[in-house]
Amino acid sequence: MSSLLQERVKCASLLKKIVKDARELVPLFKHGDYIGMSGFTGVGYPKVVPQALADHVEKNQLQGQLKFNLFVGASLGAEVEDRWAKLDMIDRRYPHQVGKNIQKGINEGRIRFSDQHLSMFPQNLAYGFYTREASNQKSPINYAIIEATEIKEDGTLILAASVGATPEILQKADKIIIEVNTALPSFDGIHDIYEVADPPHRKPFLIEKVQDRIGTPGLKIDMSKVIAVVESNRPDNTGGNTPEDETSKQIARNLTEFLMTEVDAKRLPKELLPLQSGIGNIANAVISGMVESPFQNLTVFTEVLQDCFLNLFEAGKLDFASATSVRLSNQGFDKFYADWENYKKKIVLRPQSISNAPELIRRLGVIAMNTPVEIDIYGHANSTMVNGSRMINGLGGSGDFLRNGKLSIMHTPSVRPSKNDPLGITCIVPMVTHVDHTEHDLDVFVTEYGYADMRGLCPRDRARLVIEKCAHPEYRPILLDYYETCLKKCLKAGSAHEPHDLSVVFKMYQNLHENGTMRINKWW
Amino acid sequence: MSSLLQERVKCASLLKKIVKDARELVPLFKHGDYIGMSGFTGVGYPKVVPQALADHVEKNQLQGQLKFNLFVGASLGAEVEDRWAKLDMIDRRYPHQVGKNIQKGINEGRIRFSDQHLSMFPQNLAYGFYTREASNQKSPINYAIIEATEIKEDGTLILAASVGATPEILQKADKIIIEVNTALPSFDGIHDIYEVADPPHRKPFLIEKVQDRIGTPGLKIDMSKVIAVVESNRPDNTGGNTPEDETSKQIARNLTEFLMTEVDAKRLPKELLPLQSGIGNIANAVISGMVESPFQNLTVFTEVLQDCFLNLFEAGKLDFASATSVRLSNQGFDKFYADWENYKKKIVLRPQSISNAPELIRRLGVIAMNTPVEIDIYGHANSTMVNGSRMINGLGGSGDFLRNGKLSIMHTPSVRPSKNDPLGITCIVPMVTHVDHTEHDLDVFVTEYGYADMRGLCPRDRARLVIEKCAHPEYRPILLDYYETCLKKCLKAGSAHEPHDLSVVFKMYQNLHENGTMRINKWW
Repeated sequence: MSSLLQERVKCASLLKKIVKDARELVPLFKHGDYIGMSGFTGVGYPKVVPQALADHVEKNQLQGQLKFNLFVGASLGAEVEDRWAKLDMIDRRYPHQVGKNIQKGINEGRIRFSDQHLSMFPQNLAYGFYTREASNQKSPINYAIIEATEIKEDGTLILAASVGATPEILQKADKIIIEVNTALPSFDGIHDIYEVADPPHRKPFLIEKVQDRIGTPGLKIDMSKVIAVVESNRPDNTGGNTPEDETSKQIARNLTEFLMTEVDAKRLPKELLPLQSGIGNIANAVISGMVESPFQNLTVFTEVLQDCFLNLFEAGKLDFASATSVRLSNQGFDKFYADWENYKKKIVLRPQSISNAPELIRRLGVIAMNTPVEIDIYGHANSTMVNGSRMINGLGGSGDFLRNGKLSIMHTPSVRPSKNDPLGITCIVPMVTHVDHTEHDLDVFVTEYGYADMRGLCPRDRARLVIEKCAHPEYRPILLDYYETCLKKCLKAGSAHEPHDLSVVFKMYQNLHENGTMRINKWW
Repeated sequence: MSSLLQERVKCASLLKKIVKDARELVPLFKHGDYIGMSGFTGVGYPKVVPQALADHVEKNQLQGQLKFNLFVGASLGAEVEDRWAKLDMIDRRYPHQVGKNIQKGINEGRIRFSDQHLSMFPQNLAYGFYTREASNQKSPINYAIIEATEIKEDGTLILAASVGATPEILQKADKIIIEVNTALPSFDGIHDIYEVADPPHRKPFLIEKVQDRIGTPGLKIDMSKVIAVVESNRPDNTGGNTPEDETSKQIARNLTEFLMTEVDAKRLPKELLPLQSGIGNIANAVISGMVESPFQNLTVFTEVLQDCFLNLFEAGKLDFASATSVRLSNQGFDKFYADWENYKKKIVLRPQSISNAPELIRRLGVIAMNTPVEIDIYGHANSTMVNGSRMINGLGGSGDFLRNGKLSIMHTPSVRPSKNDPLGITCIVPMVTHVDHTEHDLDVFVTEYGYADMRGLCPRDRARLVIEKCAHPEYRPILLDYYETCLKKCLKAGSAHEPHDLSVVFKMYQNLHENGTMRINKWW
């Protein structure tokens, strides 16, 4: 046993459960098992045991013969999740995923993926909703494999860079395997672990400010369930950041302009309200743009902290951030660990049942900002699927935040390139091909051309505004033609609340498929 | 002044503001005014002043020349809302409506209707989101017209059969007109009025059981804003109940069977969890079906109480009900008033910001049950629009409850008749023409043929189940043909997460339009 491991595992009875070689655990796992893992947005996930399993499958050519139902708060690192998918080791997957091979598996019909709001996943798991066929078992999850950075004297776990659904996964697991990561510092003090009771025993979450704590730094577990403690010395595999480009910077400027208008009109306080921001280059640009903005004393209530938030801390603009994971680049993690004592006071990591709780998002009045695949002229958004069929990553927490935030903002470039047209794909369409967020949920759309403030407008007024303010100039006449003609037809038919013609509404996609561009010459 | 009115208006300074003839108030109102009214699902709305205004418009042929922006918690009685619509007195309307003429106005493009989640409407109103163009005014609502059943010595209002958005409307109003309804008994003691603060000052709603109270029976107002007190002696105009038919009874039986399965599997306690139920004959049948069920000590956390809930009380099955309105038939109101002292202890009426709060619906683990226009094979639901364009009533609180309930159930007949085919319209379609509730929100679909429990299933598994368990036998092969063929195509294209072919997906609607039935012979 390494001296580092001994230092981190302070509980005598768990010290006895140390397994030196993860390969010893491989025979435990059976085809069809239900496996829960820690992890969220590619941090805080177990790295050794899942890879030992993958090695075993690869070496013995067991592809498709050792498949699991995989439960994780959100996504894992690619070397686990994507490799498992490549080796055909995943049957069901809940509630989110990232990776080329797992997407391939889902879209080729091999992986059964259920895309869930991240706030709901832990409670639905605890309710037994996902394991109904296993309801005669006492513990529907056969194995929980959890990354920790320390085990206290009493067996309490100090988790790593994410909390996610780990509390619920451990509650529902029959057997627990703990990976203690000695390549990371102990994260003791940054977590606020609160275990959510099932109705009718659930209590209010007594958080009124982003920095409020309602739980404990460590996670208590049933030690009798622990079957192994394994050392891990592999860092989180997060890679670099998506670079900001001129388009995303312009989107960020338009969004900042909108927020300043809201402050001027006294609909927002000058320090704004807690910010939520998704992942990606626009989100990065938006948060980075705040560094140059006049805003001060900002706060964050979000699910993932990326590098851009560190910049905001460094610029002295950000007072406090609450999330369920810290997903930094390697360079970002170096900065974070070097200034650990400082960041520990300014960041809290909560379970995703708390970080994404509708109760808290609405109470705090969060400003929710996310990037969709496409939006439509009446205010719906597609966050998950291409052509209504091909899954990308899943909706994550976007629905939790956009439904409940005080302001629900979606930002996207107005166009994306297709294979043979740099303006081939318009992100503003007549009707999105999959609805993840409805017209009842969204307030403001932002593109590099401007923003459409749809609050309180009827669909007809929204359509004109979205086309005029957000669509790419090349697509404005095309979209306006659709709208104006549908309006005429629907006025005649007495159905003009939200004018559509279902017989042509998806024509642009057909044109993209056939001619490589959504720029169509005529609708009818 | 009637002696009845004197008895009800106990506040000396407001007694002085009594206006005998509502017609005196008519000249106050100007074209373009923002008007807020009390009322929710056709109860608790003002009946005298709005009708005096309508009489004025009708008599002087001012149709279209005296139009208002109308803010009400939900729907009003037909003699106000629908008559106003008929007389072209409504420009904007938020966030819900009921009535043939108002729907006509919306769908003919004369009324600008913004369809909002009922939990969000009061806060968005308070935030100033709907009155941005009037943000330079101190009070964006020019007149609030409110029905009360009593005014206390200190000016506190005792509201009538609904609370709705009245607290927020009064907060934001410049001038207040109170109609004291002496045809109703005083509702003193049934309300729990809690005023919700805006972020960052909002507090947790400390309700842990349906019967918990966090507010006061009366609503405090700024008396200096009151410009008139008017007597009303007109009852709520609710009409009768939609009768239950055999289909709705069978749906109710299937739903009860599902709930019993959940109790057996210990995923629900034997007294269930608080019930929410929408309006309509299926909802009636479901709640009435509970009378015959083995369930005991039920509780209700919903937005509207209908007659069926009284039956459940009378049968000794229901312990307590929380709502924002009591919408009974005339006969139901007679029973309710006759047993007032008893019902007052078993019912609480809250503001809709509380009755529909995501925070509470999720904490209490509500069982949400609502009827859609149509549902699709992948688990989306359309609650609001025909053909994606023609508005019916709006989504009401369905999104509040279905997103946040522990169980989210939609019940619908499998088919409806078209003009020339009794099975002409299938309520289970490949893709709904408007999405109000997404696949991420809904758990169970119920029709007269059975129920599809979709929890944790991937879209492909959901599709087969929904077709098999819920679709009408006539439509099963048609839907299965769509699904199977799309699956094949999408497997080939690597886009089979949720198989669709956008070029034919709405073909059934075209067939309905052209041939009067959705029963099509072939898709391709």
